[in-house]
Amino acid sequence: MAQSSSSMQLTRAADYAVRVTVHLATLPANERTVLPELARATGVPATFLSKVLQKLRDCGFVTSRRGQAGGFELLAAGRAATITQIIEAMDGPICLNLCLAHGESCNRKHFCPAHPVWIDAQKAMLGVLNNFTVTDLAIKAAMQNGANGRSR
Amino acid sequence: MAQSSSSMQLTRAADYAVRVTVHLATLPANERTVLPELARATGVPATFLSKVLQKLRDCGFVTSRRGQAGGFELLAAGRAATITQIIEAMDGPICLNLCLAHGESCNRKHFCPAHPVWIDAQKAMLGVLNNFTVTDLAIKAAMQNGANGRSR
Repeated sequence: MAQSSSSMQLTRAADYAVRVTVHLATLPANERTVLPELARATGVPATFLSKVLQKLRDCGFVTSRRGQAGGFELLAAGRAATITQIIEAMDGPICLNLCLAHGESCNRKHFCPAHPVWIDAQKAMLGVLNNFTVTDLAIKAAMQNGANGRSR
Repeated sequence: MAQSSSSMQLTRAADYAVRVTVHLATLPANERTVLPELARATGVPATFLSKVLQKLRDCGFVTSRRGQAGGFELLAAGRAATITQIIEAMDGPICLNLCLAHGESCNRKHFCPAHPVWIDAQKAMLGVLNNFTVTDLAIKAAMQNGANGRSR
């Protein structure tokens, strides 16, 4: 049977991807940040964060440069990305139930009374996750840090 | 990294639990149905369905009797259960992100700008899943089957 912790739960990778992109978006444009500093700021183990950043780079949300003055930088596409897009960059399309996948997926969906419920539940959830970009959350973070006097 | 199919996705056990409780709710009260017939009606392998039914019985949603005229029957608590309650009977509390779990869970939640987004996304999703009971979906199924002339 399924484990209780995994049903309908965001992966750690997706959670960390949101954390790191939002943190990068609070930094000045053209500033690059090294992995240990990002790991510290996000509270994510550096080895795991490195894989997350690699995937964000593959998706065109982040760029990186080696050497002195090297590090990671958020690209415009990353700043504009919605939370849904960051999650999907890590985990592929959000799909609350198998029957919501494109194509055949489940042969019951034309008559199953639960199918429309899964559609509506996913729509409601995505309505929230589509409503915030990385920049939106960075602004919230900056305002809160200012209010608290908390350093990054 | 996480697999694409598991992020924020209902477990098969929970999907099957919804299918079988809704099917049982379309049947007359006090009628018992044997496992092979339930497996056929729901399209779920009998061995898997047996485990699902056992868990539903442990939660007081279903009862069963052995022998002739034996089989499974939905109890009043099962008829009245919301889709959320059926999912949670299988998988434990729905928790869209680790930080939404009770207790300490994540030490960033007091300042993390994403935390309120996870709260709102879960609230929106549960708003839909709490809004339908097993009986509601059984009525929808019965109406549709009547309209289509489809037998159970």
